[in-house]
Amino acid sequence: MRPTLRLGLETFGEQGTSSMNTLPQEIEKESFRLILADMGAHSFSPEELAIVVRVIHATADFDFRETIRFHPQAVRAGVTALRQGCTIIADVRMVEVGISVEILSRLGGRTICDVRHPQVCEEARALGLTRSAVAMRRNARHIQGSIVAVGNAPTALLEVIRLVREEGIHPALIIGVPVGFVNAAESKEELLTLDVPYITTLGRKGGSPVAVAIVNALLRLASYERDDG
Amino acid sequence: MRPTLRLGLETFGEQGTSSMNTLPQEIEKESFRLILADMGAHSFSPEELAIVVRVIHATADFDFRETIRFHPQAVRAGVTALRQGCTIIADVRMVEVGISVEILSRLGGRTICDVRHPQVCEEARALGLTRSAVAMRRNARHIQGSIVAVGNAPTALLEVIRLVREEGIHPALIIGVPVGFVNAAESKEELLTLDVPYITTLGRKGGSPVAVAIVNALLRLASYERDDG
Repeated sequence: MRPTLRLGLETFGEQGTSSMNTLPQEIEKESFRLILADMGAHSFSPEELAIVVRVIHATADFDFRETIRFHPQAVRAGVTALRQGCTIIADVRMVEVGISVEILSRLGGRTICDVRHPQVCEEARALGLTRSAVAMRRNARHIQGSIVAVGNAPTALLEVIRLVREEGIHPALIIGVPVGFVNAAESKEELLTLDVPYITTLGRKGGSPVAVAIVNALLRLASYERDDG
Repeated sequence: MRPTLRLGLETFGEQGTSSMNTLPQEIEKESFRLILADMGAHSFSPEELAIVVRVIHATADFDFRETIRFHPQAVRAGVTALRQGCTIIADVRMVEVGISVEILSRLGGRTICDVRHPQVCEEARALGLTRSAVAMRRNARHIQGSIVAVGNAPTALLEVIRLVREEGIHPALIIGVPVGFVNAAESKEELLTLDVPYITTLGRKGGSPVAVAIVNALLRLASYERDDG
């Protein structure tokens, strides 16, 4: 077994603890143990597995084991960008505030989320677009080399895809896991066709906790790998 | 059919729109139409249905139709408290920032979430507790008459239950929908035994978007009813 520290899942293969334990680190440890026990056969790399386990931990939903898709370069691209102190652009505040700012700032990164900026609200009203789509367009210049994390709005993901296709902007990684009944599944199918590293979850399901879990798993991978080096 | 405005689901019974529409209000309308078409038989009151639809809208997960539980007085208690300008106490920032602050402040309410307060962090470390549980204890004096919204931490919900049982504190409504593998399901079973209005989702699933969807559905009910009255 590989060193567990490197994956940010210190619990791999460890004994479970009492389920009534309230120590935060013990709760997480026991959760990871239970998830791994139910994972079954899979073809994830160890790093991808660390991400999948955190997604299931955040949602208690094993469907994501089946629907998650990693571009072959996704983990490496995300970790490299984070170690270079990249910006993370979130579609909604619920994603932004969930990101582990302690690790991110230690790596020199920061978050951007302009969904509540007065100009964004005004432009969205005027154009009949969602605020999160307008916010992505507004931050086009920051998207190059960044990690984009879309946990809520399919329209934000579609706008990022448009920026890549039509304006030649290349994020380091797109985490595209919007949730919903209108355009969520379709926007993710579009993402699969892009020549940019992505992590996504096929179908309607996704959400802010999924985006946050993926970002924070990558932050741990980036942090541990750097600590090791 | 009852007036749809009162439920805050303006879409009930309306025609669907093109799935490629990007107008925010049209996306929501079409989403509600799709969810209602798949709801099947149920015994929710119209107000409860408005909440369930928003939960499914936020998660794309129809499991919540089966697992959601409403105390008989939950909707009335929540709407009444909101109309009186009650405080909403959130366990995590992801819940707090998702709450529709426009409607809440119009009703005279505010949110509290102390999970990142330096004293909370210090006390949590010292006592070996989660920060969200310590934050609930710290805000015990604000919980009386408030709406408590727990979307993440079972330990926070267990602490609120303890405050009710041992310290005689009575929130107006407990929205207890933590997610996870350790104590989430157990904490919700405990909640069902309390003599306090609650809304919960049995089992492991829940999450910040579920808590936010319930709060925002109640805010719309409170707002529309007052507008009507």
